[in-house]
Amino acid sequence: MNLLVPSSDFADLLAHSDDTQITNILCKSAPADAAEALLALPTAEQVRVLRILPTSDAARLFEYWPTEAQARVLHALEKLDHRTTGILLDAMAQDARTALLEKLPPQVCARLVDFLSPAERNAALKLLAYPLDSVGRLMTGDFLTVLDHWNAADVLRHIRNHGHGIETVHVMFVIDEEGRLLDDLRIHDVLLSPLDRAVHEIRNGSLTFLQATDDQEAAVLTFQKYDRTVLPVVDGEGMLAGIVTVDDIMDVAEEEATEDIHKLGGVEQLDDPYLEMPIFRLIRKRASWLVVLFLGEMLTATAMAYFEGEIVKAVVLATFVPLIISSGGNSGSQAATLIIRAMALGELQLRDWWRVIRREMISGLVLGLILCAVGMMRITAWAMFTDIYGEHWFLIALTVGFSLIGVVLWGTISGSMLPFLLRRLGLDPATSSAPFVATLVDVTGLVIYFVIAGYVLRGTLL
Amino acid sequence: MNLLVPSSDFADLLAHSDDTQITNILCKSAPADAAEALLALPTAEQVRVLRILPTSDAARLFEYWPTEAQARVLHALEKLDHRTTGILLDAMAQDARTALLEKLPPQVCARLVDFLSPAERNAALKLLAYPLDSVGRLMTGDFLTVLDHWNAADVLRHIRNHGHGIETVHVMFVIDEEGRLLDDLRIHDVLLSPLDRAVHEIRNGSLTFLQATDDQEAAVLTFQKYDRTVLPVVDGEGMLAGIVTVDDIMDVAEEEATEDIHKLGGVEQLDDPYLEMPIFRLIRKRASWLVVLFLGEMLTATAMAYFEGEIVKAVVLATFVPLIISSGGNSGSQAATLIIRAMALGELQLRDWWRVIRREMISGLVLGLILCAVGMMRITAWAMFTDIYGEHWFLIALTVGFSLIGVVLWGTISGSMLPFLLRRLGLDPATSSAPFVATLVDVTGLVIYFVIAGYVLRGTLL
Repeated sequence: MNLLVPSSDFADLLAHSDDTQITNILCKSAPADAAEALLALPTAEQVRVLRILPTSDAARLFEYWPTEAQARVLHALEKLDHRTTGILLDAMAQDARTALLEKLPPQVCARLVDFLSPAERNAALKLLAYPLDSVGRLMTGDFLTVLDHWNAADVLRHIRNHGHGIETVHVMFVIDEEGRLLDDLRIHDVLLSPLDRAVHEIRNGSLTFLQATDDQEAAVLTFQKYDRTVLPVVDGEGMLAGIVTVDDIMDVAEEEATEDIHKLGGVEQLDDPYLEMPIFRLIRKRASWLVVLFLGEMLTATAMAYFEGEIVKAVVLATFVPLIISSGGNSGSQAATLIIRAMALGELQLRDWWRVIRREMISGLVLGLILCAVGMMRITAWAMFTDIYGEHWFLIALTVGFSLIGVVLWGTISGSMLPFLLRRLGLDPATSSAPFVATLVDVTGLVIYFVIAGYVLRGTLL
Repeated sequence: MNLLVPSSDFADLLAHSDDTQITNILCKSAPADAAEALLALPTAEQVRVLRILPTSDAARLFEYWPTEAQARVLHALEKLDHRTTGILLDAMAQDARTALLEKLPPQVCARLVDFLSPAERNAALKLLAYPLDSVGRLMTGDFLTVLDHWNAADVLRHIRNHGHGIETVHVMFVIDEEGRLLDDLRIHDVLLSPLDRAVHEIRNGSLTFLQATDDQEAAVLTFQKYDRTVLPVVDGEGMLAGIVTVDDIMDVAEEEATEDIHKLGGVEQLDDPYLEMPIFRLIRKRASWLVVLFLGEMLTATAMAYFEGEIVKAVVLATFVPLIISSGGNSGSQAATLIIRAMALGELQLRDWWRVIRREMISGLVLGLILCAVGMMRITAWAMFTDIYGEHWFLIALTVGFSLIGVVLWGTISGSMLPFLLRRLGLDPATSSAPFVATLVDVTGLVIYFVIAGYVLRGTLL
């Protein structure tokens, strides 16, 4: 939106500019735009530009890149020059560095950590020690702490002395002498206070914080509930361990939504954007679930074979099979989708299963009745103008109608309860994907259909 | 997390406290917690508490509530006391007020707007004039502007004089004398500058902004790309029209993900949380799509009837129908899900269709070959140990295997291309839900299957 040079011309410009010009252009642009322009260059050029730029600017642009590009450049840089590699990694924001290191192969991660300065190495290892997907992995140490007995003037002086290069200054954190978190302090409130007012009189005493071992999903809900842009994180002893900023939280929320959507569609979670994913990894992510569903769906062939006698006697029954089972599958995926999303948004807890099943039984019954009516009308209409269904058309209509009620009701109930069951077992509810529910309902739907047919058509067609 | 009183005891406490105590407790808690506690009370009690609290605190708690609760309280309050209603609405943040007003019935919205003070009424009507789902609807006027020739001391004095009650102070906006947006200015940079340095020397000259008529989805991508917590919004003339904050953007992102997930599951978008939705509205949201899919799926009955002759001759063909069509449906929903999510994340544009179709043709072929192998092995194994498939079992296995390749390939291609087609037509790609793709593929899958059967089994079973 505001890069001084469009990224397509950037390579051109780079070829005809000296180092000072390049530095000037990149540092004047919004970092996200400069990062994007740089990302379009060949690796060797990227390495060259990163080495020209002042370290802090280089690190800032580098942080915006996807992991794959970061890894490629680090690999090239490392061969060239260990020192610059260490300086670049040192200068990265801690949260961005953790996000990179945790995705690299363990031996690469260990080698890169060794390039860090002792202080940063210590910090990096501490952050990587938090469990995967915990709040600790999102933390950064890029903030200011203040003491309770300071006054507003002390705080402002502290910012002037220590605020250079600190990303988050608009909220500071009040700790006691031992480092225990007492409160947060908005720069806003400091600026509006007389200079001699003490911090403990300025801060509002209502503190919201995260635990380092909290799940990242829980952190997303906390940020949304309290509408914060930054939250402090404490360790088990209540010591301030770091902060988490809303940009990382948005990324987590987005990744989680993507993961849920992919699972709902019956695909394993992708780690990279669709187009950047090597095609055979993409196929593998899809093949596993597809084969599992296929194996499950094979039971339909077994069920159909079991009812082959009925089909031989009344081939017309076979013609409604796709209609019946897909109706069950569709109503099941609707129910599963609603419940899974409501769970992800924190609207539904395990204990709500009873309220849900009552609602879903009513919904399933009504939806089943609607499809029953539409289906019977269709068969009646066809029977009026053709003799496709023979003399027993009404019994066929009844069979299809009753089956639709049964299958839709069953699809709705199993689609809504499966996520609860999975969650109760400690699994991700989103695993009960639409295709998974559909497969489950297909097999049982066939049984429901042929059993009902057996009752309704006994003595006539069967 | 930090409410002074757990919300279950809050009703109790309220009954035994005087007004000052209630005010004290609520104003000391985090607003989100106080709002939650208050939300659990009966409407009459809510109205009573809101009237006790200082207006700005009342408005802040009120803003956190879901629309339904807000509407209920406003309705009760309005009957009691027009003045307080106006004061409460006046005190609301503009973005929260727009979000409430736009969801109310037009006549209620018009009546409530009349209660506002002239200045706020003007602002409210201006915001509501922006198109639904545009950035304009998310804007608030709750920020400070500064002039380019001011120095750091002027800015700090301006904050002291005008910063009370302003929510966003950590970023200010530099405008010229006509109100045109020049840049943003971080309080951070002001605090680190000498007091006599001019604003135009402090600000970094790289400006990111939104247009008021931009789609909210585009705003989400901009916030994520630039990692911002607040962005300015300009109108068609480049005048600063308002700001948008990241908490609203997170809500938009969440709503959009929910909408996409619901659509993918074949449900119309719900406006309320699952459990709060009246059951018959919930059923209606599901029935429409379910009936549409059902009508589409009726074509399978027509197709099956067309091939009834083949089924009569070889009933065994019917037993594989669910397996074949569900494999097509599953691979189709996988492809559709991947493409729809990649589009929503801005990873795929319309022009990428050609790259996608090449990838999906390879994927579909490989996945089809895998299922073909599994399916043929299954039939071979059964044929070894039973005579369920008769003497022509290998031809049946071939029919099923070829059909699986064809159906999976076709499912993958149509699942991946349908979102592009919908987007090209100006529709939401997410409409090509998993059930929609499955239905489409079911009908064509049947045709593929029986045509292949006709070729392979001619002269033997058919």
